[in-house]
Amino acid sequence: MTTAETHLVNGVVTDSITVNDRGLRYGDGCFETMAIHNGRIPMWQRHMTRLFDSCHRLAFHCQFNADDLAREADSLIRNREQGILRLTVTRGSGGKGYASDPSDTANRIMSLLSARLYTKDYSEKGIDVCLCKTRLSENTALAGMKHLNRLEQVLARNEWTDEYAEGLLCDQRGNVIEGTITNLFLVHNGEVITPKLNRCGVAGVMRAELLDRMHSRGLSVKEMDIGIDLLRAGQEGFLSNAVVGIWPIATIDGKAFSIGATTRMLQQELETIFSVN
Amino acid sequence: MTTAETHLVNGVVTDSITVNDRGLRYGDGCFETMAIHNGRIPMWQRHMTRLFDSCHRLAFHCQFNADDLAREADSLIRNREQGILRLTVTRGSGGKGYASDPSDTANRIMSLLSARLYTKDYSEKGIDVCLCKTRLSENTALAGMKHLNRLEQVLARNEWTDEYAEGLLCDQRGNVIEGTITNLFLVHNGEVITPKLNRCGVAGVMRAELLDRMHSRGLSVKEMDIGIDLLRAGQEGFLSNAVVGIWPIATIDGKAFSIGATTRMLQQELETIFSVN
Repeated sequence: MTTAETHLVNGVVTDSITVNDRGLRYGDGCFETMAIHNGRIPMWQRHMTRLFDSCHRLAFHCQFNADDLAREADSLIRNREQGILRLTVTRGSGGKGYASDPSDTANRIMSLLSARLYTKDYSEKGIDVCLCKTRLSENTALAGMKHLNRLEQVLARNEWTDEYAEGLLCDQRGNVIEGTITNLFLVHNGEVITPKLNRCGVAGVMRAELLDRMHSRGLSVKEMDIGIDLLRAGQEGFLSNAVVGIWPIATIDGKAFSIGATTRMLQQELETIFSVN
Repeated sequence: MTTAETHLVNGVVTDSITVNDRGLRYGDGCFETMAIHNGRIPMWQRHMTRLFDSCHRLAFHCQFNADDLAREADSLIRNREQGILRLTVTRGSGGKGYASDPSDTANRIMSLLSARLYTKDYSEKGIDVCLCKTRLSENTALAGMKHLNRLEQVLARNEWTDEYAEGLLCDQRGNVIEGTITNLFLVHNGEVITPKLNRCGVAGVMRAELLDRMHSRGLSVKEMDIGIDLLRAGQEGFLSNAVVGIWPIATIDGKAFSIGATTRMLQQELETIFSVN
């Protein structure tokens, strides 16, 4: 998929994993996609909190902690200034069918990937976004988690090739929830709004970081249902994730958005976010 | 997970697969779980039809056909009278993130597993079934497929240990859809009914076989929404899949069901089903 990859499976350098891994068998796992900037991982603590929260919700037995993962990450990142670190944790390789084995312990796969080349134009000039036909299914038990059941994102992403930088997905009710790899923010009548993620969607680490920073600045942000009409009524909007930072929205299905002060202000915050470990 | 397993990955004996496989990364695949009876696989053609139909719906590029798979299955099953064959097909190991690479070709994993030991009592005396708290999410684009996004089944199956043989799942609206590994049939006022699978659920191979056989016998079968009230009003019911055949329902959450003539008649059909390739 990319050149110069290195993988650690349970701390050991290898490119392969048992075919019995439950991540493969059932998508029984979760993952984090982390940016490497200047040899460090911004928002590491947030990534760890979300990861172990997901492991807890899924009742995984982890025989490693965030310190172990930090040591492994350090050993992989050495001498690498920029890149992407993907960390996958699965329930393990045991159990009888869907039933898990209480003695089974989680597998972890840490992968150092080459940085994807997103043009800087995306951050400066904004991106063209489409509205995907694929809908997100709803399940409160899984909402917010970055779990491995990602077929909907695969189907959505394959609705277009290069004509858009990102696509937005709606839930079954027609509320827009997120992009395939990003979270959505809109500025509407001077207020920042972002979709509620209580029924589906991934609660992004960058989304959480930006929400905190907006709150600190006294900026009102409302988490709410956002229908298509409200989406189209937005004057300004952006998409965020831990790797790309903030992409201003130039158009959604051809409807133009302007890149406004809120977006630019938050993009300036990114320098602090990406420089702090 | 079980003893004496053998795996073929793309035709080669091995226990491992690349960590880049999209089945692991995103649950981007589908699978068949097939019974081995007297050294043969009942309903092989139905399994192949469903598998390649799923591959088509997911736009996989398969460089193998059902004949290739039959040859591989034969080589694995040799001298094995009873057992389970699991066949997993994933989109491959390529692509950039969720976007697939048009030149990427599907990976296949064929696993010979030891037969799970289900007591014969299940078929004779019926089973105790619970109603799971975990709900199935709804997505018409994925409904019916036996894809690898199975976290809901894992969560549901882990709601109980040994006190039940199976658990039933409802969709988001509260209609009962299926068991974690089985499809549901009820006899209500002399008519056989089974849940519609147009929004979620797995369209089981044994379910299709039984539907055909009931139609051939002139038995009326209705696919419909089945709410909890209707479920509890059923006098007779059973669960089916390609491996266990038919399990009559003895109780659902303590409410007793009787094992009636329809269930016993279809269980007799199983002898034909399991003896024909």
